[in-house]
Amino acid sequence: MSTPSNAPKHLSGDQFRELAHRAADWIADYWENVEKRPVLSGVKPGEIASQLPTRAPRSSDAHEWDAIFADLDRIVMPGLTHWQHPNFYAFFSANASGPAVIADFICAGLGVQGMLWATSPACTEVEQRMMDWLGAAIGLPDRFLFQSGGTGGGVIAGTASESTLIAMLAARARTHMGNLVAYASSQAHSSVVKAAMIAGIAKGPGDHSAVRMISVGKDFRMRPDALEAAIRDDLASGKTPFYVCATVGTTGVTAVDPIADIAQVLRGAAPSAWLHVDAAHSGAACICEEHRWMLRGVEHVDSLCFNPHKWLLTNFDCGCLWVARRDDVTRALSISPEYLRNAATESGAVVDYRDWHIPLGRRFRALKLWFVMRHYGLDGLEAYIREHIRLAQLVESWINADARFVLAAPRTVNLVCFRLREGGDAATKALMDRINSGGRAYLTHTTTPAVDGEPAHLVIRMAISGTLTQERHVRETWSLIAGSV
Amino acid sequence: MSTPSNAPKHLSGDQFRELAHRAADWIADYWENVEKRPVLSGVKPGEIASQLPTRAPRSSDAHEWDAIFADLDRIVMPGLTHWQHPNFYAFFSANASGPAVIADFICAGLGVQGMLWATSPACTEVEQRMMDWLGAAIGLPDRFLFQSGGTGGGVIAGTASESTLIAMLAARARTHMGNLVAYASSQAHSSVVKAAMIAGIAKGPGDHSAVRMISVGKDFRMRPDALEAAIRDDLASGKTPFYVCATVGTTGVTAVDPIADIAQVLRGAAPSAWLHVDAAHSGAACICEEHRWMLRGVEHVDSLCFNPHKWLLTNFDCGCLWVARRDDVTRALSISPEYLRNAATESGAVVDYRDWHIPLGRRFRALKLWFVMRHYGLDGLEAYIREHIRLAQLVESWINADARFVLAAPRTVNLVCFRLREGGDAATKALMDRINSGGRAYLTHTTTPAVDGEPAHLVIRMAISGTLTQERHVRETWSLIAGSV
Repeated sequence: MSTPSNAPKHLSGDQFRELAHRAADWIADYWENVEKRPVLSGVKPGEIASQLPTRAPRSSDAHEWDAIFADLDRIVMPGLTHWQHPNFYAFFSANASGPAVIADFICAGLGVQGMLWATSPACTEVEQRMMDWLGAAIGLPDRFLFQSGGTGGGVIAGTASESTLIAMLAARARTHMGNLVAYASSQAHSSVVKAAMIAGIAKGPGDHSAVRMISVGKDFRMRPDALEAAIRDDLASGKTPFYVCATVGTTGVTAVDPIADIAQVLRGAAPSAWLHVDAAHSGAACICEEHRWMLRGVEHVDSLCFNPHKWLLTNFDCGCLWVARRDDVTRALSISPEYLRNAATESGAVVDYRDWHIPLGRRFRALKLWFVMRHYGLDGLEAYIREHIRLAQLVESWINADARFVLAAPRTVNLVCFRLREGGDAATKALMDRINSGGRAYLTHTTTPAVDGEPAHLVIRMAISGTLTQERHVRETWSLIAGSV
Repeated sequence: MSTPSNAPKHLSGDQFRELAHRAADWIADYWENVEKRPVLSGVKPGEIASQLPTRAPRSSDAHEWDAIFADLDRIVMPGLTHWQHPNFYAFFSANASGPAVIADFICAGLGVQGMLWATSPACTEVEQRMMDWLGAAIGLPDRFLFQSGGTGGGVIAGTASESTLIAMLAARARTHMGNLVAYASSQAHSSVVKAAMIAGIAKGPGDHSAVRMISVGKDFRMRPDALEAAIRDDLASGKTPFYVCATVGTTGVTAVDPIADIAQVLRGAAPSAWLHVDAAHSGAACICEEHRWMLRGVEHVDSLCFNPHKWLLTNFDCGCLWVARRDDVTRALSISPEYLRNAATESGAVVDYRDWHIPLGRRFRALKLWFVMRHYGLDGLEAYIREHIRLAQLVESWINADARFVLAAPRTVNLVCFRLREGGDAATKALMDRINSGGRAYLTHTTTPAVDGEPAHLVIRMAISGTLTQERHVRETWSLIAGSV
């Protein structure tokens, strides 16, 4: 950017070009070499901060970008856990990809704000269209799409935590009752409880009178009969069941709650309750027709979220939320101060996304989805998902072929959960810790709940969803695991 | 990124380099030429969406990046309102800058997640250090800094809306009373009411029994006597005053609520209430010592937020929140599911930022602050702020010298509010609409409240805070305004 008189030195156009090219090359080098790095950082608490001055520099480093890049390599890089490492199998992935990173870069350069349609119409309209593209691509019914002419539509929120909260707020705004109770399986993401805490419905993480954790059956899926019993109990004591979160792909083991059965329970026991589907991770797999069984019954739900930033090649943050009725959300979140009034809004002909979520300001995140879907095409995205699932099936077959290991939960899509047959939790945990401390791969654990006489177990999770993860990485990692018992 | 067997075509390293260089050049060209574009988009509702296919492409465009860039220019650009245009004086700015955009690009490429210290220690520790750098730079007392060894610290949230909500949730978690009431001036940002709605404290935007809008005095500053009267009223009727938001630089006219006087009222009338300062826009000016009077009394507050993404050259999103006691926040927002348990967290030696806000996942946003503060230095940031204020003083002097115009509010820093002396609101609004429809500049309006016998007025706001805005732009815009009456 050029420099105003008396003002500080902005980068000139040529300086920006040079430094941004350098950053592009730095990123390309990083991706090409990331697998040579230890996945997990080995730094001690305080080790990174202690290398930075305690106060900001008084004078400009504008002529010292070599120093800035050098410090990035010297100070920051040893303190990173590398989420783009092909042997990162922890938690769920956070997919970067070339097309998404380029789109995010352009988004930053444009620096537009999409809080209102009027503040940058393309920011809103490309997002509406991308949410239709993606919603249709995972098989959502027309009622969730803008172009159906119906009542629904989608929005890009930051994360599934935010989507879950928005859905809960919309659910609350739709009822006029007090004494609200939410329901989710015991395996649901912690964001359900957190949303209830934020909304003032739960008093704390342990307030199980406000958020009922429904028990799961043999495959760790929510038991509809247990849900029904809990709802009838609560109704009998004068409470209002207002929100049910069904999880499609739990964080622990990617269990799939039966949406259709849950919807049927609600029709009978609590017809006005809101049914939200949290498909944060596994929703991506519904790009492939053979995995859409996970969404059976979705035509009965009020909202669904899934995050392309986990397993669909679209950099964080890109959390997608669809609702069956837009008015439900805007009723909960709309406010109209004078300084935001404008003719387009008042005409009712446009969507103002600030009324769909918590922040007012918002970036042009739909560019990422546009570039990703165009670059890969739906065929490419399907191939991407199917390759990871093929690799997960491979790991599953190796586990089944090795008597020292037990498959600890059904493999739904790309997550394989296993434990050692002998030695209990301590042995399994010690195995995981050995792998992680070696730096060649990173795995995390969960605890499966006791079900039907089977006790709780600590299990190792191997989530195969990295942009760079290839068969050779999975083979090498399994050799490491099998050789470390 | 290289291509796994059987998987879709990722960009190769060389393809990524080439396309990212192209994007860098595209951004540089955009900034160099943005002032030739109309600031405001003239498209009609639906015009952008109608140019995009209704469904995602089935096949890859991987070999057609020319088409992707062409569609960016052809479809998206005409639908943008250009927030980086030097004659964008609407709302408040959303500053992009070369150093910040490069940092954001690298952040996207790294694709790490900082929800826990353990998930990328540098992501957390650089953020802690940057919050200390920036906090010290705007003159915050040591109690808000990590390195003081005290109880406070800062976090990067998405927006001031989120910061205001976090502060309110922390305030609620600190009290054990019911019947909560929040207070803010009638000129406070709409996010205070929205936070109360989200938290379940207010039933809707008009619920003034839960959020009291305190009247303002002649300079549109909150009246401490009116605050005290409202609090005493509420106490007398059994309510619990729990949260006060003081605004430093209101959205309408950048009025500054008197923090010290408000704190004194609270000490006498509601000593356990939380005092939050929303300095979202004007906090940036506190980089300069001569503007720190706006924060007089800040040593008594519980939290403060300001957004470097508005007027401090750090791309959206970068909303900064400091709290005096970290425990207040984590008490409100902490949850600890099994799959996030780790040794570093349990040692208590580290900060886990997921307990400081609503999302779980979080980007490495501190990189932006690091690059910006190093590139410009505090001297450069001060010069940047002072130049905008000098330009605002120029506009103020032109208004005072032209009998057709009235300065509609005291100019605090860089926002000049004015109206026409004759013709009432309609004439002023018509003048603004003429300027905006011409495409050479973009201004927005607010309505100043009736105070001390002076009636309410519609006034034009001219916020001078664009990265690219120079004296010639301001002169040209004023000529346009003065010539359009």
